[in-house]
Amino acid sequence: MLSEFFNPSSVAVIGASHKKGKIGHTIFNNFSNGTFSGKIYAVNQDSTPIDDNRVYQSVKDIPGNVDLAVIATPAKTVPSILKECVEKNVKSAIVISSGFSETGKDGSALEEECKGILKGSGMRVMGPNGLGVYNSSNGVDTMFLPEEKMGRPKKGGISIISQSGAIGASMLDWLSEQSIGVSKFVSYGNAMDVNELDILEYLSEDDSTKVIVAYMEGIKCDGKRFIKTVKKISRRKPVIVLKSGKTDVGKEAASSHTGSLAGHSEVYSAAFKQAGMIETDNWIEMFDMAQAFACQPLPRGNKLLIVTNGGGFGVLAADEAARSGVVLKNPSKGMKDILKDELPGYASLKNPIDIMGDADSERYERVIKEGLKEYDGVLVIVVFQTVSMDDGIIRKLSDISEKSDKPIFLCAAGGKYTSEMSKKMRDSGIPVYVNPERAVNAFSRMFEHYGRNSD
Amino acid sequence: MLSEFFNPSSVAVIGASHKKGKIGHTIFNNFSNGTFSGKIYAVNQDSTPIDDNRVYQSVKDIPGNVDLAVIATPAKTVPSILKECVEKNVKSAIVISSGFSETGKDGSALEEECKGILKGSGMRVMGPNGLGVYNSSNGVDTMFLPEEKMGRPKKGGISIISQSGAIGASMLDWLSEQSIGVSKFVSYGNAMDVNELDILEYLSEDDSTKVIVAYMEGIKCDGKRFIKTVKKISRRKPVIVLKSGKTDVGKEAASSHTGSLAGHSEVYSAAFKQAGMIETDNWIEMFDMAQAFACQPLPRGNKLLIVTNGGGFGVLAADEAARSGVVLKNPSKGMKDILKDELPGYASLKNPIDIMGDADSERYERVIKEGLKEYDGVLVIVVFQTVSMDDGIIRKLSDISEKSDKPIFLCAAGGKYTSEMSKKMRDSGIPVYVNPERAVNAFSRMFEHYGRNSD
Repeated sequence: MLSEFFNPSSVAVIGASHKKGKIGHTIFNNFSNGTFSGKIYAVNQDSTPIDDNRVYQSVKDIPGNVDLAVIATPAKTVPSILKECVEKNVKSAIVISSGFSETGKDGSALEEECKGILKGSGMRVMGPNGLGVYNSSNGVDTMFLPEEKMGRPKKGGISIISQSGAIGASMLDWLSEQSIGVSKFVSYGNAMDVNELDILEYLSEDDSTKVIVAYMEGIKCDGKRFIKTVKKISRRKPVIVLKSGKTDVGKEAASSHTGSLAGHSEVYSAAFKQAGMIETDNWIEMFDMAQAFACQPLPRGNKLLIVTNGGGFGVLAADEAARSGVVLKNPSKGMKDILKDELPGYASLKNPIDIMGDADSERYERVIKEGLKEYDGVLVIVVFQTVSMDDGIIRKLSDISEKSDKPIFLCAAGGKYTSEMSKKMRDSGIPVYVNPERAVNAFSRMFEHYGRNSD
Repeated sequence: MLSEFFNPSSVAVIGASHKKGKIGHTIFNNFSNGTFSGKIYAVNQDSTPIDDNRVYQSVKDIPGNVDLAVIATPAKTVPSILKECVEKNVKSAIVISSGFSETGKDGSALEEECKGILKGSGMRVMGPNGLGVYNSSNGVDTMFLPEEKMGRPKKGGISIISQSGAIGASMLDWLSEQSIGVSKFVSYGNAMDVNELDILEYLSEDDSTKVIVAYMEGIKCDGKRFIKTVKKISRRKPVIVLKSGKTDVGKEAASSHTGSLAGHSEVYSAAFKQAGMIETDNWIEMFDMAQAFACQPLPRGNKLLIVTNGGGFGVLAADEAARSGVVLKNPSKGMKDILKDELPGYASLKNPIDIMGDADSERYERVIKEGLKEYDGVLVIVVFQTVSMDDGIIRKLSDISEKSDKPIFLCAAGGKYTSEMSKKMRDSGIPVYVNPERAVNAFSRMFEHYGRNSD
């Protein structure tokens, strides 16, 4: 149903601007100079060409069909533009413009006027007051933030919906720098037509989406329908949610921000739980989970093996395991006997297994291969700063992970060199964490999700 | 008392190696090719010169005095080398070598033998089984991890003691990448002579140390003395602690790692509290606090103003404020009246103040300057991805902060461009956070510390 938003063959940017730095310029540029291979039309009352591209004075002047109209004009012009879009039989539109219900009475009236125009038209609309859509696979990118300031993430299995454009943009930029891949992103703004539930339903049937991440300030649709629908979606793929405006003060702030009526914390948390969603406390934690869900299988038990070349990190991981109910049983006698032959005598064979500061990739490989036979997942902690560690571990971990149906996590903390290694590791499908606690927590939450959705 | 460890005029590296990649080569290289301006001597049984540097066969052959000996030879050779150091009247020594009490009975015996040699000698010894010392101001750097893999942080007000070398190294590397400055770092290993309390006492009197950060698995000295001494230190400067091995499983892991007897979680937490220390949950949070303590004044009240150009982040910050007892009262009528004249009509003047997506540095400046008059601190949230924000905010914030006796915090989340801005901001003395929650939490913990130590 929402397919044209993500896979349009033809796009009209209404309000395409001649001036660099303007919203309408950036959006038009995303399509015309990016990887988008469909037709792209510029619409502006000033018909001077933009970088040699013809400019139409109205969407109605465009000769061919328009699958998607992206509207970036002053709020008061939006109703008449929407009318023209309806007349042109445009299939879908994204209203980027702000100045609607989020600003008060006059804006609300304007939004109601737009809703009236849409009624019965068959045209679906996203926004207003949102960034719109990003699809990593085909260059659809309605985000008005310039690429010099905001990176676009590579392809991957995480799809994101965000009620806040600013948070959405910051997250995408961060993901791009971390080399964490994204499938689709939607900033739906005031949701005057398409709401979070419509998008969740679309993403639940989208094959390239492995996990859905949602930042919400309030729910725009009916609560009961929300729970019922998301419950079904959660059984197909994990839905991770960050709800803000959970406290009275935050609620107040949310209300002046997007006009959302943010309900009580407990009510929301209970609803999310009932819907099978995975709730998180902050946006970084959201992607701690999402990374792992997107590229690793769910653990079918909660026995975790930790292997490290830095004892201290093993201790921190063990503490977190104990706190979150993850079981760190020691290796079996059989496993110990095998490792005794393969590891130096000073290695510690309790769990966490400490293979010591002079460990190389081979030593890790031996332990992980044995570990996967009797544990439900392996947390690999690598201090990349040591002389004996290098990028050899990347290939090894990725090979092991590809052949395994159990999840593997990496923890690596450091600076430039470690960040490079971490990015390469992520490119090979291994989730990476700077805190051992966060890696253990991701394992624990994955097991919890498995338990809730496997019966 | 420990001054020679941090400010030696002459250093002998015993076990200085001819082979690149070897521990003894890296350490010697740190001194001979770095910024260290004192005398540096190589000691090795093989007297072939190392990069044109003369090599002495024994520390006793060195013609001048030796303030600091750094020993990186096999464990079994350490007792005789220590004997030679004592005979040479070396003032202090760092034993980098591992293979002592952390490995079991034989190692413990070796450690006891070393202790016997030290008795009555007047020579102080750090280690064994540690990385030793890093002093950002004079090039003293006994860390055997090569600079290509582990960055060294710039000068700053944070001093760090770490019982784990791996965690210490990873933290320093991370701090260097984040542009967070460090004064001194100590990885004290098994603490056979100099222990954590000796170092804490030294750092408490060190003028360039503004805040002390400690990673501990157990306490090596007497508990009562620890509390009594640290209580005094905490009144002079904040001591932030991360204690691992707090759960039974973690304790077990800690014991096979450094041989520490890690006590019960509650006992430690109570002791830390009594000692006025600031306890944290993970190593990233440790530096959330440390950054702020090192460069910002303590808040003398808990009224925080939040100003943002991205409403969503304001909501998340407001939620955290409510959870941590930080007061977000709205601006006074007087302040509102002033801002009404200076901000566009669509800005929200409640706290968090949302100056909207088209805000520039000037708009921030006006709000912050007014805010500092009636709040105890200001959290500035900047979405750097917007077209209207640039590095102008850095100079403005740094100027405001220099003239103010109230703390200012920045929250900025994103990728490459935002990271660059964040580093520049830190270079100007403003602490920066990727999560609004973490910034609010830093403010809250600073106020807590103020309350505890101001009466």
